Amino acid sequence: MSAAAAQRGPRTRVAIAGFGTVGRSVARLLQEVAQPELQLVAILNRGVERKRVDWLDGSVRWTENIEDLLTDDVDVIVELIGGRTPAEEWIRRALRAGKSVVTANKQVIAHAGPELLEEAARSNRHVRFEAAVAGGVPVVRAIEHGLAGDRLTRVAGILNGTCNYILSRMERGRVPFWEALAEAQALGLAEADPSQDIEGFDAQAKLAILAHIALGAHVPAHAIQAKRIDVIDAVDFLYAQQMGCTIRQVAWAERTTDPHVLAAAVGPALVPLDSPLARVRGSENLVTLRGQYGGETTFGGLGAGGDPTAVAVMSDLLAIAREGVPSSCRAGAARADVSADFTSAFYVRFTVADRPGIIASLATVFARHAINIDAILQEPGFPEGRRPFVVSLDPAPASAIDRAIQEMSQCDFHGEPPVVLPVLSSATVGAGA
Amino acid sequence: MSAAAAQRGPRTRVAIAGFGTVGRSVARLLQEVAQPELQLVAILNRGVERKRVDWLDGSVRWTENIEDLLTDDVDVIVELIGGRTPAEEWIRRALRAGKSVVTANKQVIAHAGPELLEEAARSNRHVRFEAAVAGGVPVVRAIEHGLAGDRLTRVAGILNGTCNYILSRMERGRVPFWEALAEAQALGLAEADPSQDIEGFDAQAKLAILAHIALGAHVPAHAIQAKRIDVIDAVDFLYAQQMGCTIRQVAWAERTTDPHVLAAAVGPALVPLDSPLARVRGSENLVTLRGQYGGETTFGGLGAGGDPTAVAVMSDLLAIAREGVPSSCRAGAARADVSADFTSAFYVRFTVADRPGIIASLATVFARHAINIDAILQEPGFPEGRRPFVVSLDPAPASAIDRAIQEMSQCDFHGEPPVVLPVLSSATVGAGA
Repeated sequence: MSAAAAQRGPRTRVAIAGFGTVGRSVARLLQEVAQPELQLVAILNRGVERKRVDWLDGSVRWTENIEDLLTDDVDVIVELIGGRTPAEEWIRRALRAGKSVVTANKQVIAHAGPELLEEAARSNRHVRFEAAVAGGVPVVRAIEHGLAGDRLTRVAGILNGTCNYILSRMERGRVPFWEALAEAQALGLAEADPSQDIEGFDAQAKLAILAHIALGAHVPAHAIQAKRIDVIDAVDFLYAQQMGCTIRQVAWAERTTDPHVLAAAVGPALVPLDSPLARVRGSENLVTLRGQYGGETTFGGLGAGGDPTAVAVMSDLLAIAREGVPSSCRAGAARADVSADFTSAFYVRFTVADRPGIIASLATVFARHAINIDAILQEPGFPEGRRPFVVSLDPAPASAIDRAIQEMSQCDFHGEPPVVLPVLSSATVGAGA
Repeated sequence: MSAAAAQRGPRTRVAIAGFGTVGRSVARLLQEVAQPELQLVAILNRGVERKRVDWLDGSVRWTENIEDLLTDDVDVIVELIGGRTPAEEWIRRALRAGKSVVTANKQVIAHAGPELLEEAARSNRHVRFEAAVAGGVPVVRAIEHGLAGDRLTRVAGILNGTCNYILSRMERGRVPFWEALAEAQALGLAEADPSQDIEGFDAQAKLAILAHIALGAHVPAHAIQAKRIDVIDAVDFLYAQQMGCTIRQVAWAERTTDPHVLAAAVGPALVPLDSPLARVRGSENLVTLRGQYGGETTFGGLGAGGDPTAVAVMSDLLAIAREGVPSSCRAGAARADVSADFTSAFYVRFTVADRPGIIASLATVFARHAINIDAILQEPGFPEGRRPFVVSLDPAPASAIDRAIQEMSQCDFHGEPPVVLPVLSSATVGAGA
């Protein structure tokens, strides 16, 4: 409970900044699921008059002005306006004004999280962001508390429900990428401009936050390699299945032997059909944490949507109301470099104008880079000028694969650029026994 | 931090009662994963001299006498001796002596949890039991905090790793029950006397704890219906697969329209192959919680073993060290009655001495009890005197099924008693979209 609340009585007074889908759900939960510790006192939105609803207590103030939330009777500001500007500055000002902050803003936390946590620690206030990572899945809390006794070594997950919807739709319906995307847009699961999701920037920001709180590594989100998922074709699911796999947008980060270097990447990858990641359907999220002592622990649920996100916000609000001193367990994250040069098996799909000698020349290049071919898969029934075939490669450093593919790009038989996907083993992403 | 610790300095002083596998792991974690808040001061065990290890700090006291732990320099007692006697009384005495308690003891918490929580609240101390429910899976914490803003309506899970190992081994290897059990025993996953697991008493106790903390219903563990899994035969997996299902020992509890009645049961059940429960392999545990707002959230991981259990104990210890006032969110559970008369689709396997008219007579009995037959499945290749066939039934109350089966027991064609299993739909146990 904040000092201000303690003086005046037992309730923590909450203001919501941003009255969109999530903001309305938070207000409704504050009203419907009676939490004696919490009281909604103010709502901020642009053009607030058209936002006003009649189901909220008449004592709630409606405002367009952030200054109205920095007043004495507000203990916590829930920031749900999204984007970096002006949200980041508002959060900073709120902390300096002695308010705690709950936010669902992954961009702000991925970019300025460590700094805002320090600011909060200085003023003995909270910054909490459960909703910023995996929507309604309480993974921040689990890392902070439930697994606090372990030493976490890796985090892997499906952090973007839009990509997961698209890829699992392609898997099940054997439909092309753009058709699955259009469906996701029609269902409201993808934005009109889906680039944040498809290019991996959304998952990148969430992974940076997870790396910070789970692995103690402070890395700028943009330093994490992100690969786009729209290179994936329906045929890739066919080949993946032959390899006992499916394809998911996976975000993962792992400690390396160098304490200053984190291995991390976001992008489409083959995952074993019996792994937890393969079983995530539709717009669900899943996070798998590996601990030195506790083994693999998984957390799954709805990664987006007003109500699930609001549940995460509520858990942060209750933590602030119930717990005195902000937990210090996330302090002391060390700035780390990011490497995407992990060693993995790889799947490479070539699409070629068929003619003799192609495989021989590819095999020669792979051999030159000390990369072993595990198998070559070719399905019949494709037109002669654009035949897709797949080379699966034994584990090798990603940098060696990149160099080999780069060298092959000189060849004139490519109908499309090769599609290169890591094959994440059960050891990497977890799997049933 | 406890009051005593606050007076003397920043460290919470921990005593371990019971230095078996889990106790040793807890001691090791306290030593290896430096937690500045925690200090191990004493270890209790019978015949403590033969338990003494050389890798612990020389300042740790070794004792056989509980009085030695009720002294001034102990803040928290970790109870790992198991069983109800004398553990329950020791926990009570520890609380009265102003100690907090962390326990992995499901029997004690299932039986006396509400009373011990009240005792703890009176003396402003903690009783924490993360390790009592699903080993290393931090589900107690998630319910208490991460989902605190939601109204949970149902909990379902795989809470017994031994049963899950046996059933998933039967599924994959098509081996008979007793062979899978012998394997589990050889691997140390099942006790020499496996009745606590197989008859469902272990899961029953864990479910009673979950019902208490997730659904606010205080029910005696023994009031929850538990059915044994050793009635399951390899052939049941064959038939289940034809119905798109597999078989798991499932524990579930759900609010009913009557606030004083909880629907709950433990036993083998058919679960859809694409449900989270079906995907739990080996000795893993999984808990699915349904919230009115947040939808289904799942938590999975290792349900047993020294290190995973110790991680759960450590998270409880850190919660005590870091959080001042014990959370009140589990207070106020109301005593509830338990009903196992849920409505469900059912699977009934009859094993009969084949002769004309059997199906007609069974169908007549089902019809008399207003139960609709969905399908009849019969695999060829079984001996004439013991032919297994399966009747799948449309949703009906469990009580109606019981009455019909009771009536059929009069018939003289049974080679074995019928095996009756609920078919838990995706709506009941969650499933991918």
